[in-house]
Amino acid sequence: MATVKQAGRERVPPHPDVRTISLQQVLEALVDPVRRLIVSELYAAPEDLSCGTIDLPVSKSTATHHFHVLREAGLIRQYYVGTSRMNALRRDEVDEAFPGLLSALVAERDRA
Amino acid sequence: MATVKQAGRERVPPHPDVRTISLQQVLEALVDPVRRLIVSELYAAPEDLSCGTIDLPVSKSTATHHFHVLREAGLIRQYYVGTSRMNALRRDEVDEAFPGLLSALVAERDRA
Repeated sequence: MATVKQAGRERVPPHPDVRTISLQQVLEALVDPVRRLIVSELYAAPEDLSCGTIDLPVSKSTATHHFHVLREAGLIRQYYVGTSRMNALRRDEVDEAFPGLLSALVAERDRA
Repeated sequence: MATVKQAGRERVPPHPDVRTISLQQVLEALVDPVRRLIVSELYAAPEDLSCGTIDLPVSKSTATHHFHVLREAGLIRQYYVGTSRMNALRRDEVDEAFPGLLSALVAERDRA
């Protein structure tokens, strides 16, 4: 069991400090509607979601790319539970760095 | 004088209803740093600004393009005073349609 846990830790991808991310990078991540959809789903969900749980209108490999961009932009945190890659919105950190931005995106969800 | 006024009216370009603008279009406008700079300057200014008043790191024709994109995205209102093209941020309308978005941009200004 200890070995499995170790392997899981090794597979945690790198995450940037949100305070080092520019609004430019965040906007480039969020200008894509599929990536906004992922953020909205994570915002609305009561718990972290695995990649497969979020219904997206793109192929699995494209979805993986979008999750990657969001992670690099400091918007989500990814980790493994067994073989599932889980996703968490870095809500508090993003709210602190970019006040108002996430609520503007959620407003889109309510509007649609 | 009446003729001059009439001519001025004819030169007012079309402005979309902000409620018909999608967040997608607004984000595509705001993902450009020069356009965000224009919005920030208009946000901070106590009055409407002519195009030439805003110091931008681009050519005049490129600046004209950026103002055009912002107008089409419902973010600014343009009108003429004599030969000066004036720009006003459509702040109340944008705040109503996209709550939190402008304040997130202004936060960038404060951060920089």
